[in-house]
Amino acid sequence: MRRQIYSLLVENTSGVTSHISGLFARRGYNIDSFAAGVTTDPRFTRITIASTGDEQILEQIEKQLAKLEDVISVKLLDPEDSVYRELVLLKVSASDEQRQAIMSISQIFRAKIVDVSKDSLIIELTGSPSKVNAFIELLDEYGILELARTGATGLSRGSSNITVVD
Amino acid sequence: MRRQIYSLLVENTSGVTSHISGLFARRGYNIDSFAAGVTTDPRFTRITIASTGDEQILEQIEKQLAKLEDVISVKLLDPEDSVYRELVLLKVSASDEQRQAIMSISQIFRAKIVDVSKDSLIIELTGSPSKVNAFIELLDEYGILELARTGATGLSRGSSNITVVD
Repeated sequence: MRRQIYSLLVENTSGVTSHISGLFARRGYNIDSFAAGVTTDPRFTRITIASTGDEQILEQIEKQLAKLEDVISVKLLDPEDSVYRELVLLKVSASDEQRQAIMSISQIFRAKIVDVSKDSLIIELTGSPSKVNAFIELLDEYGILELARTGATGLSRGSSNITVVD
Repeated sequence: MRRQIYSLLVENTSGVTSHISGLFARRGYNIDSFAAGVTTDPRFTRITIASTGDEQILEQIEKQLAKLEDVISVKLLDPEDSVYRELVLLKVSASDEQRQAIMSISQIFRAKIVDVSKDSLIIELTGSPSKVNAFIELLDEYGILELARTGATGLSRGSSNITVVD
């Protein structure tokens, strides 16, 4: 079992998210995270999907995705040669005594405190999924009230270009 | 026409993304962005969807989402009372002469340079969708080679809690 990141360039239609997630659902493929946002060209959307499976399944997913009519291109993001980030917002329970400890942990991770209330903090962190997981684990002992992750997105490094329609 | 953010707590099944995006597709509702990631409890996923429409459509979307079997709760994020962020990765074409100007703009937006190659930079920025749009617009004149946005995610401020199963 390993993790694979698919970076798709798709047509920006109301059905495209449904076609892609429907493929995963019908075949029982796992979706670890799913992030979709417009590109600079409003006709296209970039969708980044993380999935876990054995080699054979991961290859099948790639082939099936490429067959979908509104999918323009499918690129596998090589972890060695990609910038790969996600964003998490965490609301952590924080009494006066705990606040300083939580802020110190946040500083080490270069996370930002974006909201403070009498008994809680909201912290924003971006990083690789493993960094995000480590941060969540550390803060878990203070009591995570809420958590929202975007799912990861990524780009290949240097000049190898994945927006080119192929 | 206005924009609405839906924050959903859903069961973490292989079909749930498909059920939700299928609802938007069948009814022709617009999806501006879609972000799904696991919560601290692996049984649940948080999905944040931004949609644009008139009042009536936006209300219908809320009602229809709440009816779905694997949707546990639907919360509207009030822009006045929420922390609302997205992450964008931008690969910008950068000659030696342009690099300094791009880095200055990035500094003003508190964006991070995460990759440098001979003729391009990858920049990471988090912020509200309007901040992200302003940044993209500024960098567009240097030539954006690639762009990947996660779609926005958000939490309500203070102690009002949206992970509570209701």
